[in-house]
Amino acid sequence: MALLFVSSAERAAVWVSAFDAAGEKIIVGEEAVTDPAEITHLLCWTPPKDLQRYPNLRVVISAGAGVDQMPPLPEGVELVRAIDPGIEEMVRDWVVMATLMQHRAIPVYLARAQQGLWKPQPGRHAKNTRVGIMGMGRIGTLAAQTLGGMGFKVSGWSRSGRAVADVPVYGLQDLDVFLSQSDILICLLPLTTETRGILNADLFAKLPEGAALVHAGRGAQLDMQAMRDALDGGALSSAMLDVTNPEPLPADHWAWRDPRVIITPHIAAVTDHHAGSMHALEVIRATRDNRPLPGRVDQDRGY
Amino acid sequence: MALLFVSSAERAAVWVSAFDAAGEKIIVGEEAVTDPAEITHLLCWTPPKDLQRYPNLRVVISAGAGVDQMPPLPEGVELVRAIDPGIEEMVRDWVVMATLMQHRAIPVYLARAQQGLWKPQPGRHAKNTRVGIMGMGRIGTLAAQTLGGMGFKVSGWSRSGRAVADVPVYGLQDLDVFLSQSDILICLLPLTTETRGILNADLFAKLPEGAALVHAGRGAQLDMQAMRDALDGGALSSAMLDVTNPEPLPADHWAWRDPRVIITPHIAAVTDHHAGSMHALEVIRATRDNRPLPGRVDQDRGY
Repeated sequence: MALLFVSSAERAAVWVSAFDAAGEKIIVGEEAVTDPAEITHLLCWTPPKDLQRYPNLRVVISAGAGVDQMPPLPEGVELVRAIDPGIEEMVRDWVVMATLMQHRAIPVYLARAQQGLWKPQPGRHAKNTRVGIMGMGRIGTLAAQTLGGMGFKVSGWSRSGRAVADVPVYGLQDLDVFLSQSDILICLLPLTTETRGILNADLFAKLPEGAALVHAGRGAQLDMQAMRDALDGGALSSAMLDVTNPEPLPADHWAWRDPRVIITPHIAAVTDHHAGSMHALEVIRATRDNRPLPGRVDQDRGY
Repeated sequence: MALLFVSSAERAAVWVSAFDAAGEKIIVGEEAVTDPAEITHLLCWTPPKDLQRYPNLRVVISAGAGVDQMPPLPEGVELVRAIDPGIEEMVRDWVVMATLMQHRAIPVYLARAQQGLWKPQPGRHAKNTRVGIMGMGRIGTLAAQTLGGMGFKVSGWSRSGRAVADVPVYGLQDLDVFLSQSDILICLLPLTTETRGILNADLFAKLPEGAALVHAGRGAQLDMQAMRDALDGGALSSAMLDVTNPEPLPADHWAWRDPRVIITPHIAAVTDHHAGSMHALEVIRATRDNRPLPGRVDQDRGY
């Protein structure tokens, strides 16, 4: 068994020493492969075109927590997402930060600061602000707990509609009710056929007037022009995006220069190499022992 | 008994209806006073010069939670700070937001956004970041609980050095140890003789290299030039200020244009008129009943 890590030697340094220490084989870069038959595991953001080159490939591990960039894999090849203990908390931290920045009118104050303008405006208590979270997986649940603990009125929306701890969660068919109660809307959905383009004009129109958007799902879920229209029309007052459409956002895109929009370059989750290599080792051991693979993705459902 | 509210009729509207409903007398603006002898309570940010005009004045209520703007009051006149249930949570929210913004390098990403530059940089898990809170009163305790709940390693520093819940708190004499362990330093201290100018070159030099500053105490505690030198020299990497020195910050001040510094115009706590009038009514009733005044300030200690 060997892991082929599609990366540069520089980036892979931490991985190589972790694999050496564990007595497992790692090969960095396709050009370093001498015997394709020994490759059983492949770690990459997107796989090389010619996967047929590796007759014994059993598992592809995504370099990120998301897997929507992955093409369909050959029959019998498992797909695993990156697992970094702490990465979900890291995304939660970004979401809580972005929500507070919207709640406390940071886009307004940043614009005033650029003019050297010291001008307070009335604020709101968290307990009077309703936060709606689309996607109540592990990250959504963590965000709901932290924001709820700070006094925000939190509700969720998910496929199952299953309540999480003390947080009410609306099901698929109750999207409109959920949206009408979301002063700050947080998107944490995975990218699927159903969620592609879900943040559109129709959805923005169902939010309370002047709502704020916090987007840490996937760029392809967001219609940026519809967001701009909603900002201009007053349906939205501001937005904070960690993902954009397209991504990366071109330097001349209007959103960079719109004071109502704050953008971070997909850094809500930043992979930690140490955590990544520990997870890959665990996947290899699980494969050998015929145990369930940590982070295994159901390739039909897409998450 | 009557409350003189030094304010405009427009700002006082909520107050007048609350006092009417409670059957208590309120007078808005000194020019509306016909019988100075009936004024027993005065609500203001700073009092009028000639307090001798009100022979029966017993209590001055500060319009804000801070009282350092108040001059010494005549013998026998009590000083009370504004109490808004929820205002401390509001400051906590600002502090948590500012801490997360420093932790997640928002000053760096805002500067890149201005150039339309999509460029991620490595991030840190909260559990690897040490947060030090100067001032462990109610707000400091709330902030410690929320940040600790998110995984940050939190410690405090206070006059008493009394531990709060699970948070270790250093005493006065252990300031240097406390500072050496504060990757993000939060100042929530009241302004006293001892804390004036406390955020100076000497203090910044004791922080870990590249630390971040979050300041929601008082402007006069901060030596802005020393902060600039610390930013230039690398002792500090960034700062987020809700209070400045001087305050308001003039439009042409360098700090507005320094990308390492984010400034909000003293809005961590924004007074809510409803909560303010409820508190003032309670102070009047307590005066009449000879009960302890809610929010009473020890004028010798200054808080």
